[in-house]
Amino acid sequence: MSIEDRLNELGIALPEAAAPVASYLPVVVEGGFAHVSGQLPFVEGSVVTGRLGENVTPDEGQAAAHACGLMILAQLKQAGLLEKVRRVVKLGVFVSSTPEFTGQPAIANGASDLMAEVFGDAGRHARAAVGVAALPLGAVVEVDAILAVEMD
Amino acid sequence: MSIEDRLNELGIALPEAAAPVASYLPVVVEGGFAHVSGQLPFVEGSVVTGRLGENVTPDEGQAAAHACGLMILAQLKQAGLLEKVRRVVKLGVFVSSTPEFTGQPAIANGASDLMAEVFGDAGRHARAAVGVAALPLGAVVEVDAILAVEMD
Amino acid sequence: MSIEDRLNELGIALPEAAAPVASYLPVVVEGGFAHVSGQLPFVEGSVVTGRLGENVTPDEGQAAAHACGLMILAQLKQAGLLEKVRRVVKLGVFVSSTPEFTGQPAIANGASDLMAEVFGDAGRHARAAVGVAALPLGAVVEVDAILAVEMD
Repeated sequence: MSIEDRLNELGIALPEAAAPVASYLPVVVEGGFAHVSGQLPFVEGSVVTGRLGENVTPDEGQAAAHACGLMILAQLKQAGLLEKVRRVVKLGVFVSSTPEFTGQPAIANGASDLMAEVFGDAGRHARAAVGVAALPLGAVVEVDAILAVEMD
Repeated sequence: MSIEDRLNELGIALPEAAAPVASYLPVVVEGGFAHVSGQLPFVEGSVVTGRLGENVTPDEGQAAAHACGLMILAQLKQAGLLEKVRRVVKLGVFVSSTPEFTGQPAIANGASDLMAEVFGDAGRHARAAVGVAALPLGAVVEVDAILAVEMD
Repeated sequence: MSIEDRLNELGIALPEAAAPVASYLPVVVEGGFAHVSGQLPFVEGSVVTGRLGENVTPDEGQAAAHACGLMILAQLKQAGLLEKVRRVVKLGVFVSSTPEFTGQPAIANGASDLMAEVFGDAGRHARAAVGVAALPLGAVVEVDAILAVEMD
């Protein structure tokens, strides 16, 4: 089954791939790896803002991480790579957090679970999840990714 | 000398490899690289918690980073990769820090020095060390790694 | 045109490559990728210190990120890799930020724009930019890099 078909089966509609906020590219492929730039949680065209431990609940944070994951998929699709993913290798998950909030793993699962749903075993990945002081545009979460892709 | 023998010579006993806190894998190998997920400092089964500049001394922080390094080795061993390490390529070191604490490099040496002790020249690596607002489970330090491994 | 010639044409003089602050290497090459350690903004031998949202303006922050980028180039030159860069693959940009500062992308452009100026299309890269609580030596910005390099 293609990944597009799998997304349809799951009832997942990808967002429009967000243009980079600044001077960089959404995806770079070299040596069999695709590096996807840090993606923010866009929902209906707006960034989900806030900070865990302050004004965002864990469920909202997890939903925001899921939205970051969807944007990673949207960027891969736009780059013509969605059907060429051999393996999700690593996710880097940066969670806007107060010093007291220590539940970053559950937040990050919003992105991690999506990858496993969409890619199956090939979607299971290594990960680092950390709490950061602030994110671009006030975003709740930012997620970057390394994937192994088929080389032409 | 095998790495297991070298660990014995150094008097280092690896901890039990910690199960991932959530939906991800401890290690993923692709294209000759092993990506190890962010590891927390477990000592006798408990996470070492706290924040540099607040309630953790630099020596305690460095010991926590050493514990993260041991957990990276334990994960490699469990994945059957410990004797296949060709090179430690990169460590990412995230230190729970107050805004005033700027001694992250010395903390990170707890993990870096371990790699050099265990792997010799092959253990010398690139690194980024930064101070973050908060870490999973309240951990003092989190360290992830990229290693070059022999391909079968 | 060589990269050295291009730097001359741009009027860019690289700084002296900074020695690692601790137990690690500035650059490690494996499998066609060069991993460059997190570089701090040295200007005339001193680290540019401060925090965005507190005592550093966005223009100063962007200039500091540019200085980090120059140091990445200086490390590549010292490692004999400057003329072997095939592609800048990924920059990781860590911006010392108050919880209120959300302009990390513009800061990070100080490093990103430099790469595009020096390497042209090969300098366009993936990126993650986040705001962190604190950085080594009190630095304003830290930037690490992955580059694809020609293998001998």
